[in-house]
Amino acid sequence: MMTLAETANFMKSNNDYLILTHRRPDGDTLGSAAGLCLGLQSLGKRAYVAANPEAAGHFERFVKDLVSPPEFTALNIISVDTASKELFPKEFGGMVENVALAIDHHPNGGAYAARTLLNSTCAATGELVTLLLKEMGVDITPDIARPLYVAIVTDTGCLRYENTTSQTLRVTADLKDTGVNTAAINMEYFEKKTFSRLALEAALLQDVELLQEGRIAIMRLTFEKIEKTQASPDDTDNLASLAREIMGVEIGVTLREELDGETKISLRTGHAYDAGKICARLGGGGHARAAGCTVKLNADKAREAILNAIFDEYELATWHLH
Amino acid sequence: MMTLAETANFMKSNNDYLILTHRRPDGDTLGSAAGLCLGLQSLGKRAYVAANPEAAGHFERFVKDLVSPPEFTALNIISVDTASKELFPKEFGGMVENVALAIDHHPNGGAYAARTLLNSTCAATGELVTLLLKEMGVDITPDIARPLYVAIVTDTGCLRYENTTSQTLRVTADLKDTGVNTAAINMEYFEKKTFSRLALEAALLQDVELLQEGRIAIMRLTFEKIEKTQASPDDTDNLASLAREIMGVEIGVTLREELDGETKISLRTGHAYDAGKICARLGGGGHARAAGCTVKLNADKAREAILNAIFDEYELATWHLH
Repeated sequence: MMTLAETANFMKSNNDYLILTHRRPDGDTLGSAAGLCLGLQSLGKRAYVAANPEAAGHFERFVKDLVSPPEFTALNIISVDTASKELFPKEFGGMVENVALAIDHHPNGGAYAARTLLNSTCAATGELVTLLLKEMGVDITPDIARPLYVAIVTDTGCLRYENTTSQTLRVTADLKDTGVNTAAINMEYFEKKTFSRLALEAALLQDVELLQEGRIAIMRLTFEKIEKTQASPDDTDNLASLAREIMGVEIGVTLREELDGETKISLRTGHAYDAGKICARLGGGGHARAAGCTVKLNADKAREAILNAIFDEYELATWHLH
Repeated sequence: MMTLAETANFMKSNNDYLILTHRRPDGDTLGSAAGLCLGLQSLGKRAYVAANPEAAGHFERFVKDLVSPPEFTALNIISVDTASKELFPKEFGGMVENVALAIDHHPNGGAYAARTLLNSTCAATGELVTLLLKEMGVDITPDIARPLYVAIVTDTGCLRYENTTSQTLRVTADLKDTGVNTAAINMEYFEKKTFSRLALEAALLQDVELLQEGRIAIMRLTFEKIEKTQASPDDTDNLASLAREIMGVEIGVTLREELDGETKISLRTGHAYDAGKICARLGGGGHARAAGCTVKLNADKAREAILNAIFDEYELATWHLH
């Protein structure tokens, strides 16, 4: 484990960097890679980002001009935001055995690397990279600040989540001082929804079913609603969290009609209910706060099945049945 | 116009403060009032908040234990976040003629007061009050920091809007350093919505009017929608920003029916359009990104009036009329 100063020295006294990001790359891994790469380049270093085959959409723009050319030979491989070796894309092959430095904010992350710069009090790897660039004496320009800002707001829900510390806010203030238009970034990544998405949300809310004094909300995503609102496949992403936005709701259930007569059930829960355990009862799984399963039942029967699973897991007797 | 230091001296060398908030009080006016009041009390001053008949719901808790008792005689009336005299509740009566100091972040605000502490680069009056308390040497406790944090996040959409500066972030970091649980506040005020609020949003989205290739969105907040969704007064707060959440919308207009046949128009705009300038054409005002006006017209006529104001301000010729 290295200090910031030791890491800055390492970066300044070496050259020919290739930066690795993790699978299903998000704003933090891609933003951190771009910020670090541009920072190194500004010091006259040769630095590139390894092409991540899964980088797409929103955040790809940050790295697409930084991808290493075929003739480049990396001498120092750096990983960002990647806690374990298994999280790299398969395409990285043997490179993952030769990571000179892992920069990460996950507890115990980067054990696969020769060196680690690890700080799990940082809300995002982008926060740690910003501190590192400052330690290296990099003049942080708006082009460097932009991906780092995106990295931080990606992992903090735009500075709202519990992991946001006063250091996070101060680092973000430093990035803002470069003149980067953070409001435009927030608007683009966090506030804007397509009209069809908003219409679909409205349609789902219109016949949401509230049970157990409002602790359970059940939404139905039907073909009819998708058609009526002209919702695209993108519009139907992450809809399950909508039910949990209702005040008082502890268990949000989304029932989605599938083409073959099956129903996909998504669950989002508050801290008192384990979504993964409930869904496991119907052959599914996931995390404690977010899980799912697919059942060979129509939506009405699926509703019954998931309610029974909830009541079985959490003792029917403690619930008032409406 | 006073400096921070002059204002701090004024506050420290006087006593018996009564703090006034504006009509339809929001998190910024009530949070600023509570933070200032508690800060003054911590220095041994007698300080209270004037009962605001419209304070209700969410933010009322901050001021309800600070309301002036009947036997209190105010020597120095201070207003927070109230740009003009007309924005006070009628119940304040003659008090509004005797405001010793207006603390505000609205451009040109507080002209009615004997003194002003005005800083329109502050995103919220709560940001300015925090700077003032620090200048006064107040030890900012979590109880003082909590309403001030709420004031700042209320006016900045949880630190996302364009008005958020690096100073805003640093002031917020200082408030966080007191140990106040900001993530819990964010969850309570910004992530959870009442069912009736979500139903009201759905109702507004259902007949939103998109004009100019989707650059203008017009929503109508009618008595019928409020009744149908059983929306509370709190549920109707900050609805205007909803229109701007639609991808592509640059000017979000919300038309709100008022009891006396008037219509309240709220505008939210992207960076290319000045909401304050547009609303000034109809006798209103506000900020560049958020402004409003109230017109003696029904909703249909108000719609026409605000569209004309938009087209007059931004040259009809550049717009395609649908």
